[in-house]
Parts: sequence; structure tokens; C-alpha cells
Amino acid sequence: MFVERQRQMLNLVLAESALELVQRGIWGAPAVVSDLRRRGKEPGMILLDRSLHHSAMQKLENPEKRGRPDLVHISLLSATGTPLYARGELQVHVHTSQDVILDVARSTRIPKNYLRFRGLMEQALDGKSGGGLVRAYGGTLRDLMTAIGGDPVVGLSSQGKPEELGAFAERLARSRNPVVVVGGFPHGHFSKKTLGVLDELVRIHPDPLEAHVVISRLLYEFEKAIERINR
Amino acid sequence: MFVERQRQMLNLVLAESALELVQRGIWGAPAVVSDLRRRGKEPGMILLDRSLHHSAMQKLENPEKRGRPDLVHISLLSATGTPLYARGELQVHVHTSQDVILDVARSTRIPKNYLRFRGLMEQALDGKSGGGLVRAYGGTLRDLMTAIGGDPVVGLSSQGKPEELGAFAERLARSRNPVVVVGGFPHGHFSKKTLGVLDELVRIHPDPLEAHVVISRLLYEFEKAIERINR
Repeated sequence: MFVERQRQMLNLVLAESALELVQRGIWGAPAVVSDLRRRGKEPGMILLDRSLHHSAMQKLENPEKRGRPDLVHISLLSATGTPLYARGELQVHVHTSQDVILDVARSTRIPKNYLRFRGLMEQALDGKSGGGLVRAYGGTLRDLMTAIGGDPVVGLSSQGKPEELGAFAERLARSRNPVVVVGGFPHGHFSKKTLGVLDELVRIHPDPLEAHVVISRLLYEFEKAIERINR
Repeated sequence: MFVERQRQMLNLVLAESALELVQRGIWGAPAVVSDLRRRGKEPGMILLDRSLHHSAMQKLENPEKRGRPDLVHISLLSATGTPLYARGELQVHVHTSQDVILDVARSTRIPKNYLRFRGLMEQALDGKSGGGLVRAYGGTLRDLMTAIGGDPVVGLSSQGKPEELGAFAERLARSRNPVVVVGGFPHGHFSKKTLGVLDELVRIHPDPLEAHVVISRLLYEFEKAIERINR
């Protein structure tokens, strides 16, 4: 795993992310077959995407939390567009709803073009290295947390305890090895399994916010907190 | 035009954006023809996209500033994901390098899925209403500024005068009808024509930042400034 330990490194984890390849159970569904035909791909090598496979997804467990690679894409761009990431002080991990972990190698440039991003994720999830930029392997969120050894591990959720974002970011910046967990799914809340690996649950805004908005704001405040501390 | 005037409304303009339909001059280029065939579309009805049409784009003027609908997409998502936008206190306009203006109707939900976004933009730029959500018409940045009647009109650029972002946002929040202009292109700086409509040019970070990162940070600080003022 690409896990770094050094001063003021922040680990960001997108948890239970709605990112996966189309599963065998729905390979024969009309929406999937027509997508495969259009793209000239083998079944099991394309990303599940609600906007294309909606009708086929009703057979899946927890369909409302799955098939949103677009959310993962936007969230990764929000994280990797920051000066914090450019300086190598942010480590990004994606955990999926199907217990796959994707480590984003340091200073990887996530493609802004969605079609290229989709290709990269399809390669990585299919066990190809994705050019060494993104590596996928089976693992639970707990496995990832063990590898990172985070302290503290804080989940952000509208069900958490309210904390002003600037103060929260400064608390993180003063921690030994902080990990922030953000949900990589469109609706609903963290599962019990995810809640079980968190030390705390924090709410940073009165309204529920999209993952990419949470990430942008958190990383900005984290950068400002580091500047204040180093001043 | 969807231009609103009321207290603490912020106008955000993405200027010289790299968003346009493929122009007649390159309809016959191999990269364009194969894309048209794949999508089953008529020429002139698809977005110019560097990741697909790179080889054909060298014939165009200013190719380095064009064909990046992905940047416009991410920037619009960063803006429309904010509580400020949800409260109806942010008006978003896109000006393109080819002098087309797109007004985003208030409380429009920009599709997060890129393929849906692409379809919406292709419809709007082709003169179809895009479901009334996005309306396109010919116009220069100066035309748009006249319609908004902004005061002040501030461009954000790495060539601008440094100003701390929190202080800048508060200055905007205390203005009568503030307009912020951000470049919607991948490289380079504002054209002379754009500089000509700006009252000031401000730099908010020592490093050049991507448009979506600038937008996320600015809107977050603007929300905080409004909270401070209203407290």
C-alpha cells in the first residue's frame, strides 16, 4: 500500500464508494448488453454506471449506493487539484462498497476527462496496473485503516457532532497521523461496518454536502491550518 | 438573460471557456469523422474535445485554449454544489472562447455524469433550450458585463495583485453587485479583450490553481464572509 508517515501528511479515504465493475449476475441484462455492444467491451470489464444500467441495477443489493463512478471522479479531482496534494502532503485512498481498495500513487494526475478516468478505473479494477498510477486489491476499510495506522480516524457525516471546519482542520493538522473518511456514495449514511472503524463522527455544515464539496473545503482549511501552525 | 439583483447575490463568470461545437473547418478531419460515426451524430452537433480531436485541432486558432468541456463541467459542479448556489445567492454564467454566453437558470442541477452534461451542452449550443436549464446565445464578455451591471468586476489570475482570499471574499460580500471572472481554459492567461472589461485582477494563491479549485475556495470564503456580516 502507498502509505506514508511523515509530519502533516493527511490521509483522505473515500469510503463505500459507488465504484465497481458490472457483476456477473447482470451481464445478460438488456441495458448492460447494449452498453457492451456500443463500447465493444467484454462483460465484466466495464464500470457499473447508474445513468446507463439503471434498470439492470434493481437486482443488486443496496442499489441506491452503487454505480456512481462520476461521484468518485469529481471527488478525486477535488482532492488532487489542491496545492496540498501537489506538495505530496495528501495521500488519497478509495474504498469501494464491494471491499476493493484503490491506492492513488503520489503525484498521480487523475484524468479530468471522464472517458479517460473510466478507462483507468476499468483497468485498475480488472487487476491491471493502470500505468502504476492506481493500484486495486481486495480489502475492507478496516484492513486499510490497519495499514495506515491513523490517529485519529474521523468520519465526516451529517449525522456527526457539529464542529467548525477551521477548528476541526487545525485539530487534524496537530494530530500525529490524521485520517479523514468521506462517503463515496450518493445517498444515505455510512454502514455500521464503516462506523465501527471510526474514532469519531463530525459534521462540518448544517446541510448535507456532496463529497467533492466536503473534500474541497476540508483540504483548503487543512492547508490554512498548516500555514498558521508553521507561521 | 438570467441576471438577478438583490443583496449578497454573487455573479460568477467562467470566461473564454474551452467549450464549443466542432467547427465546419475540421468536419472532415479523421479524428472528427470517427467520433461522429461512433456516436451516430451529425457534424456540427458534437462538442470539441481535445482528448478525441487533438490531431484535428492544430488547424484551429488558439488550439491550446480550446476543446476542454471537462474543465467547464468540473467548474460548474464545484459552483453548483455549494450551499450558496442552493440558496439562490449565486448566479453562474459561462462565456466561451467563441463568444457564446450560456446562462445557467437558477437552481439548475448540472448533471454529474459527463455524458449527460455533454448532451446538455450540445443541445444548448445547437440552439435547443436544454430543457430550459441552460440557454445559449451569441455575446461577448462585455455584453454579459453590461447586462449584469457588476460592481466591482474582478478577474482572478496568477497575474493579479495578491490578496488574502478571506479578505477578498469579504470585500466582495460588502459590494453592491459583485462579479468574479475565472478563466475556463486549461493554459495561459486572460486575453486583452477580457482584461479590458475587468476593474481589477486579483491573485488568491502563490501557485496557479485550476479553475474548479479557485471556484470552490472562493465560494466557501464568500459564504463565510456573508455569515460574519450577518452575525
